Amino acid sequence: MSGRDALIQQHRLPEPLYVTRPALPSLEAYTERLRPVWEKRWLANAGDAHQELEQRIAAFHGVEHASLFCNGTIAMLVGIQSLGIASGEVVTTPFTFPATTHTLFWNRLTPVFCDIKPDDYTMDPAKLERSITRETRAILPVHVYGGLCDMDGIEAIAKRHGLPVLYDAAHIFGVRDVNGPPLARGDVSVLSFHATKVFTTAEGGAVIARDAALKRRIDLLKNFGIAGEEQVLSPGINGKMSELNATLGLLNLDGVEAELEGRRAVLRRYRERLTGERGLTLLSEHRGITPNGAYMPVRIDAAAFGRSRDEVHETMRACNVITRKYFFPLCSHFDFYRDLPSARPENLPEAERAAREVLCLPIYGALELPLVDRVCDLLLALRG
Amino acid sequence: MSGRDALIQQHRLPEPLYVTRPALPSLEAYTERLRPVWEKRWLANAGDAHQELEQRIAAFHGVEHASLFCNGTIAMLVGIQSLGIASGEVVTTPFTFPATTHTLFWNRLTPVFCDIKPDDYTMDPAKLERSITRETRAILPVHVYGGLCDMDGIEAIAKRHGLPVLYDAAHIFGVRDVNGPPLARGDVSVLSFHATKVFTTAEGGAVIARDAALKRRIDLLKNFGIAGEEQVLSPGINGKMSELNATLGLLNLDGVEAELEGRRAVLRRYRERLTGERGLTLLSEHRGITPNGAYMPVRIDAAAFGRSRDEVHETMRACNVITRKYFFPLCSHFDFYRDLPSARPENLPEAERAAREVLCLPIYGALELPLVDRVCDLLLALRG
Repeated sequence: MSGRDALIQQHRLPEPLYVTRPALPSLEAYTERLRPVWEKRWLANAGDAHQELEQRIAAFHGVEHASLFCNGTIAMLVGIQSLGIASGEVVTTPFTFPATTHTLFWNRLTPVFCDIKPDDYTMDPAKLERSITRETRAILPVHVYGGLCDMDGIEAIAKRHGLPVLYDAAHIFGVRDVNGPPLARGDVSVLSFHATKVFTTAEGGAVIARDAALKRRIDLLKNFGIAGEEQVLSPGINGKMSELNATLGLLNLDGVEAELEGRRAVLRRYRERLTGERGLTLLSEHRGITPNGAYMPVRIDAAAFGRSRDEVHETMRACNVITRKYFFPLCSHFDFYRDLPSARPENLPEAERAAREVLCLPIYGALELPLVDRVCDLLLALRG
Repeated sequence: MSGRDALIQQHRLPEPLYVTRPALPSLEAYTERLRPVWEKRWLANAGDAHQELEQRIAAFHGVEHASLFCNGTIAMLVGIQSLGIASGEVVTTPFTFPATTHTLFWNRLTPVFCDIKPDDYTMDPAKLERSITRETRAILPVHVYGGLCDMDGIEAIAKRHGLPVLYDAAHIFGVRDVNGPPLARGDVSVLSFHATKVFTTAEGGAVIARDAALKRRIDLLKNFGIAGEEQVLSPGINGKMSELNATLGLLNLDGVEAELEGRRAVLRRYRERLTGERGLTLLSEHRGITPNGAYMPVRIDAAAFGRSRDEVHETMRACNVITRKYFFPLCSHFDFYRDLPSARPENLPEAERAAREVLCLPIYGALELPLVDRVCDLLLALRG
């Protein structure tokens, strides 16, 4: 038996351990909460559950203006459209989910890729200014893994150039900052409530707008631009969240503090076990930020660790531990963006390295700590 | 007391009668059907309910290739995108819901409005050819109210010009044609499962593709263009339907024949009561077509009826009968399309007239026939 086979035999879990698992209320609680929906037979178009969830999502994050959406991508699509940018460039980063860049495409905007910081994988303000041209219309930074962008740094530059800032906030549901609500920053922030997220409505998302006028424009755009029975004001789209999804959201919001607490406990255990281990680097923790445990990224330096990220990914899978190369590939690698001047690897050294080295380990609120220990044992046993 | 007040007093319903009401399974049946979803905790991304519903929707309509979507608008957005048209014109009609035209906008395509036939409100093939230019890239006809377009006429012209045909089929769920499945026609047909439709998933829709290769492209586009863990092939979007919605769809599909039967009974009653009445014209019935009772449009000729459509709409509302001016306004009336050469009212005389004259009366499967009679009594009493 080879060393790898022996290791797999020793560490293999009896059942697959997935990288995440959605929190769910009891089916009985969901049934009960759906009863008024069934009685009223109002299934979509700003129903009671939708309206209540919208307010509670805003209140939970200490902001005023949330708009629910059928998913985070359509939320981003409309968030961008609400700024009234007809053409030009938007500076973003390639270390993100394809939706960030794709929604620019659908808005007839060209992405310009700015490199990221090596410690937290967010847009590097020191490299931002060189990405700005006369064609730049907005900046679209991405909060990554539950960590926050350098919002002060980015917004100072945006202000100097008179550019709006849209945050891709899909990863930061529930993240707290002593300096104030992260979602109150910029012109627009976009949340995702996909099944893989800290808080889920199965599919869903939201736009947080900086003021009431912008929220009105967003709400208009998410319902075809229909301003009343006889008025259509803008070429909107259908971005509405149904009552089935909003009702799940109401119950998951009731339980989200417990989910966040569970995730933070898992995060702490991973940190205890992996901090300072040769070849591994964990996500930087910023002072004053309460994390949400959305992801557990670990960076694997192949030379120091003695094994590449890809080898670790494969062997862990063989042991029934399903990790995720997230984000790989970079958006700048996709065929239809790779010819952009900003997509050249030499323009994005940190993003290129992160895409090669980062692996996301399993994390969710109900993940038991002994299982976390087994994942850590396996990872450390894999070190060459 | 004025004559109008007396009429309202005589005909007013104790409760509002809405223009439609969604069919729903029992809440207990719904949550029972959700149990496997809860057990597996698989809420989105082609879950078991999604896969089953996709196959059953196709089988129900006698076609092979259905792709479910979060709503009919995103379905249309992706349906258009799947044809690979990068720019140019698409010939459509203005007598439709805003989504039809808006999805062209999002695809960087310019709508060209063709007039409709006065008898069934669908694209008039006799006027289609003059709308075709060197810039035309596709034809997007709309099946209206459960009636079918003149597909032979349209497709003959499309073929002559080498143009693909996309049908907006939001209104024709369950419509049967002795000549074969209507959804098998053209390159793409798009269904809506919105709460106001014959068959509903709360929010939802589907694209029916002409062949397996096109379905693959559509499925790729609806999931961000992600072809595998490490490949993103096209700038797609999130168009996925969640398991909450797909599960409702499975149960509603179990009951849809009863819903269709109920709607057809309501339709028959309306026809018995209103056919041949002075000033009123009903939708033409085409031989060999089994209607779905999706809508009950009645055309009100103000001169002959002695009262305008708008007056009827208002007075019926005062009597708690909620009707709908559908479609009014025309898409060609919206500020952002009205300057198109094809949007001029003189180019669209039949559509202009229909938008002024058509009123949709309440119809749904559970609507009791005595209530239909009261609506008819009221309408006829309104005649001047």
